[in-house]
Amino acid sequence: MSDQLSIVLFSGTDDRLQAAAVLTAGAAATGRPVHVFLQYWAVDAFRRDRIDLDHGASPEAGVAGRAAMAALRAAGQSSWKEVFQQAKDIGEVTIQGCSLTMDLFHIEHDDLDPIVDGIEGVASFMFAAGEGQIVFI
Amino acid sequence: MSDQLSIVLFSGTDDRLQAAAVLTAGAAATGRPVHVFLQYWAVDAFRRDRIDLDHGASPEAGVAGRAAMAALRAAGQSSWKEVFQQAKDIGEVTIQGCSLTMDLFHIEHDDLDPIVDGIEGVASFMFAAGEGQIVFI
Amino acid sequence: MSDQLSIVLFSGTDDRLQAAAVLTAGAAATGRPVHVFLQYWAVDAFRRDRIDLDHGASPEAGVAGRAAMAALRAAGQSSWKEVFQQAKDIGEVTIQGCSLTMDLFHIEHDDLDPIVDGIEGVASFMFAAGEGQIVFI
Repeated sequence: MSDQLSIVLFSGTDDRLQAAAVLTAGAAATGRPVHVFLQYWAVDAFRRDRIDLDHGASPEAGVAGRAAMAALRAAGQSSWKEVFQQAKDIGEVTIQGCSLTMDLFHIEHDDLDPIVDGIEGVASFMFAAGEGQIVFI
Repeated sequence: MSDQLSIVLFSGTDDRLQAAAVLTAGAAATGRPVHVFLQYWAVDAFRRDRIDLDHGASPEAGVAGRAAMAALRAAGQSSWKEVFQQAKDIGEVTIQGCSLTMDLFHIEHDDLDPIVDGIEGVASFMFAAGEGQIVFI
Repeated sequence: MSDQLSIVLFSGTDDRLQAAAVLTAGAAATGRPVHVFLQYWAVDAFRRDRIDLDHGASPEAGVAGRAAMAALRAAGQSSWKEVFQQAKDIGEVTIQGCSLTMDLFHIEHDDLDPIVDGIEGVASFMFAAGEGQIVFI
């Protein structure tokens, strides 16, 4: 249990989603289980009809940062969805939606991209995290 | 000590404050002590004359996200202050202001809402966190 | 190993960089090794020709918050670079740039301020973090 990495993925911008995907892949590549818990704007970003859209960037990206990110996409850089999928292919990675967020924003399980494995509550997430690492992104 | 959850609460927007409150309540509900350390914009949000105001949302909320949050408030959703209070009622939760932030922004202990238990420095916080989980929100 | 604090420093605004520097100094002051891994906008902020510039603040700072931060700078408050340097002077602190970010944004090691010790990949960072604390800022 204790080598599991638990990620509360709250943010809905492409830069932070990409950072979360890269951390997930890095941990999975070293053989560690990763448990990703989607809250708030991340749930919205994982909707099946929105996951491939442009989700913007953190404000400090500025014009230059957003242009650099757009150039990377145009050059074929893996999207964060693809990096999460690669992490799932090589390791033990589960992605769960937060039931409270989904109730609040009237999002159904079926609204989410199939890369999301299921729905759970925060107490379940905390219980599964145990005393292992928790990162909030 | 090691099952304590320590939260550095830095953000001052209602969405992130709510996420912090829900994590705190989830951990408290499973019997774990939670130590919340308020820095920067979170200290400002916990001022007694501001804690009940609208503190906005992360930029990615957008118009639709802010409207959804406003609708939830209008429908009587518990505010993050109320969720923190519920967590304190059911478990071992302490909320401390960061002394450095308070010095920097000229905020006195008496300016803070009574839900804040005290003031401490970052070294005290790190010492109390020990090797347990630390989450930065 | 397990008392090491690992920080993924992703943000590029002065308020969050300062929070990261203060946490680093607080941990170093209590004798703990600290490993800082720069991603995305933090890499940009550590460029030698930009590190001393104004990097703005989180959106919730607002006009009042940015004015308070400007007043602190004018009054001689240590910059986050100085606080990181103090932490390195008193403890075992290493600052590493993320190789993937640097590739993506075409940043060379030589473009970074000398306070950055080296470059590494995310898998190396995760391996070095082991089961110790990881904080994402």
